[in-house]
Amino acid sequence: MSTDTAAPLSATRQTTLRRHRERGRTGRDDLYAVLDAGLICHLGVVVAGAPRVLPTAYGRIGDTLYLHGSSANAGLLAADGQPVCVTVTHLDGLVCARSVFTHSVNYRSAMIFGTAAILKDDPERIVALRAIVEQLVPDRWAIAREPTAKEMAATAVLALPLTEASVKTRNGPPADDPEDHELDVWAGVLPSALAFGPPQPDPELRPGIAVPDHIVRAAQRSGGHTLGA
Amino acid sequence: MSTDTAAPLSATRQTTLRRHRERGRTGRDDLYAVLDAGLICHLGVVVAGAPRVLPTAYGRIGDTLYLHGSSANAGLLAADGQPVCVTVTHLDGLVCARSVFTHSVNYRSAMIFGTAAILKDDPERIVALRAIVEQLVPDRWAIAREPTAKEMAATAVLALPLTEASVKTRNGPPADDPEDHELDVWAGVLPSALAFGPPQPDPELRPGIAVPDHIVRAAQRSGGHTLGA
Repeated sequence: MSTDTAAPLSATRQTTLRRHRERGRTGRDDLYAVLDAGLICHLGVVVAGAPRVLPTAYGRIGDTLYLHGSSANAGLLAADGQPVCVTVTHLDGLVCARSVFTHSVNYRSAMIFGTAAILKDDPERIVALRAIVEQLVPDRWAIAREPTAKEMAATAVLALPLTEASVKTRNGPPADDPEDHELDVWAGVLPSALAFGPPQPDPELRPGIAVPDHIVRAAQRSGGHTLGA
Repeated sequence: MSTDTAAPLSATRQTTLRRHRERGRTGRDDLYAVLDAGLICHLGVVVAGAPRVLPTAYGRIGDTLYLHGSSANAGLLAADGQPVCVTVTHLDGLVCARSVFTHSVNYRSAMIFGTAAILKDDPERIVALRAIVEQLVPDRWAIAREPTAKEMAATAVLALPLTEASVKTRNGPPADDPEDHELDVWAGVLPSALAFGPPQPDPELRPGIAVPDHIVRAAQRSGGHTLGA
């Protein structure tokens, strides 16, 4: 699978920013950075004319995004051959301004539009599932038991090409009007990021199995954003 | 505004869980708990037949959810009088199982279905905006400058009744098949939660304004989930 990271993101009617253009990112690398730092996405599908927004895990290989779920998941199956929107959002901070109106959040988000397809081919399905597990916990796939045929049959895998996408970010301090700077109000940013606690071993864990390095490393991830002063 | 917390959530075709029924929560208090612990939601709207999933802030008053955005936000305006879906998701942990298939995530999520309406009435719009700001940073509204008429005109506020909703949660250790317990694979949960770093004062902040208590308290929030052993 080729990946042309120099190709800019498409600019269609859906992905051309009309407001806050300064927040737009148009490089394919920007899209990859937002996706690769995330753990879950929100999948939008239309079911019987109404939108449905499903939180789910995902993985990326080159210019394809993969999602999965139960083969009995009506929302996921409804996406097959249909237009979908997948959004990944990192909340990087709460922007506390002097005026209510200029309050905001710092964030990185990617919105991908396209037609999703349920995969039929088992080799590609396995590669996709590996990408999804590795997105959650890198180096996990190799140590875990691979799926059986029955487990594969119970799993639906959806592919979405990264053709049409929009990336937006905001960072930095509040953008109060200069005349508001005189107000006697604290202003600044409360930085936020997903953080991990110490690994909790399964109560059923066989004695003598230590926490492996890949779990320690996974706990040290920052989601592409560093908290702290 | 009355809030009957004893009324169960609706059970319609959209909100009746077909899989993992044990993850379903049917109490209105469960819905409030997921919503009140969150900072951003994902709003799904249908625009020209295709779904669009927008990350945005929100607030709740009783049985109404409020969202806001620029009055030039096409996605938000498209929601007026239309069916929408708003999803709030907390990622509480990465569930590392012995088999690939039983890998999962611990989470709390709420999915709300309904018809959204753009508010026209300024007093209700102000109350809604207050709820949205307070959801991000409690006790913030009272110290910040209130919106001007011009700022109000630039803001669209959307209301969504909390009538039809589905709440799902998963927590606890991996659910490996008993025969997989013999595998020589570490299994357990890597707990996760949104965390806050030290407040970063605006570089333009007037000298002598200390970090206020409400910011200190906001930084200590846990999102309804406690990390740690």
